[in-house]
Amino acid sequence: MTLTSAGEQAWQTVRRIRTHEQVLTQIQEKILTGRLQVGDRLPSERELVEALGVSRTSVREALRVLESMGIVDAHVGSGRDAGSTVAGRSTEALSHLLRLHMALSQFKLADLVETRTQLERAAAERAATEATTQDIERLRSLVHSMAAPGIDHETFHELDTEFHISIAKASRNTLTVDLMQTLRDAVKSEMKAAFARVHDWTSMVQRLTSEHCEILAAIENQNGHDAAHRVAQHISGFYETATDLGTFTDNED
Amino acid sequence: MTLTSAGEQAWQTVRRIRTHEQVLTQIQEKILTGRLQVGDRLPSERELVEALGVSRTSVREALRVLESMGIVDAHVGSGRDAGSTVAGRSTEALSHLLRLHMALSQFKLADLVETRTQLERAAAERAATEATTQDIERLRSLVHSMAAPGIDHETFHELDTEFHISIAKASRNTLTVDLMQTLRDAVKSEMKAAFARVHDWTSMVQRLTSEHCEILAAIENQNGHDAAHRVAQHISGFYETATDLGTFTDNED
Repeated sequence: MTLTSAGEQAWQTVRRIRTHEQVLTQIQEKILTGRLQVGDRLPSERELVEALGVSRTSVREALRVLESMGIVDAHVGSGRDAGSTVAGRSTEALSHLLRLHMALSQFKLADLVETRTQLERAAAERAATEATTQDIERLRSLVHSMAAPGIDHETFHELDTEFHISIAKASRNTLTVDLMQTLRDAVKSEMKAAFARVHDWTSMVQRLTSEHCEILAAIENQNGHDAAHRVAQHISGFYETATDLGTFTDNED
Repeated sequence: MTLTSAGEQAWQTVRRIRTHEQVLTQIQEKILTGRLQVGDRLPSERELVEALGVSRTSVREALRVLESMGIVDAHVGSGRDAGSTVAGRSTEALSHLLRLHMALSQFKLADLVETRTQLERAAAERAATEATTQDIERLRSLVHSMAAPGIDHETFHELDTEFHISIAKASRNTLTVDLMQTLRDAVKSEMKAAFARVHDWTSMVQRLTSEHCEILAAIENQNGHDAAHRVAQHISGFYETATDLGTFTDNED
């Protein structure tokens, strides 16, 4: 591998920085340096137009981008000059972005399952030491609900998601919770399709329920190593079944 | 915990769905269902205005949002009616979003370090079985460059990032690569500040270099367990030092 010396560098395309991007940069800079915080009110559109010396269109475009990122909430209160407030709704925006990029085939499903497994292993291990009595109660109640006779795919899937996210919550790492939620959301339709294709649904529910019970028991017994191992087995086992059923196929490799 | 029955549900705020959001939804739907793929050209602004029966402003706002997400590239080619193309630049947009949310204190730095450690452990373990001769060469060359006498903080930090990302690349999981890049970017300024505060820079470079050598050796010897262990020690060791130096302090807990 030869490195191109500075003198030989190819020309770089000059990217025109548009007005709304400059507005964006200024607002984001204030957030990154802590001068704007959650709950703070942004100046109104009109005030921003005056302060920045740009068109109302540019200001509005910048605000739309920030809203789509979950960074600001549009005009709360009365009138369009009430100003937006700085929000902090990360998960939804991150999930959304990841889901679009998944659709554009940036990632292989197998990679996503692997990454999810890594995060869940660590969450389960940590939950075994961090979980409170309330966390355990919550997990137990979810396992109980999932064992309801005649439970349908949809309900099971929702409770199942809730169970896994609750483990992450019990680990007290909010970033992991958000990433897990994001990865879950990103494969929601594939998961639903996989559930729908299961031939013997009753046996599948029994199998998953007994695995959930084992994971819960490991967390309750504060056996982090066991909890991590069991959750990893649980995910890869289901992934294998789903792959056998013809869902979860990647276009590459 | 009692569940609220359907009949007792509180009123939900009605959220006005604005025109540009409907444009966004339509374009995103085509991406999610695979009808729009990377490299595809979107209709021009004018064509979208006609096809959707909305104002040019709404179309433009929707396009700005998609651009900021790295989902489309603005008008390539001649004129503003050339149409945008579907891009797939995920990492940058994800990093950016995560960085803003970090600034809004959604996540604690300790959580981020823990999550990063989990991802890097798994990447190193997998790299031990997946790394090619070229990957090993690349890692060796980076370790070598980092050991250059009198290396400055900035250069070291860049090579260090490259080393960790290269391990993830050697694991062949592109999602992990992107997430690691994102988490790294999110704490870039904190990392730089930590490097800058190190009293005995020469010893620190020696320590980190010897740790990098050990990680590399474990990967080269295909000892995944050892590689994972060493990379986790390496990260938590540096984090502890940085915390002692007074950087990396969280406002909570």
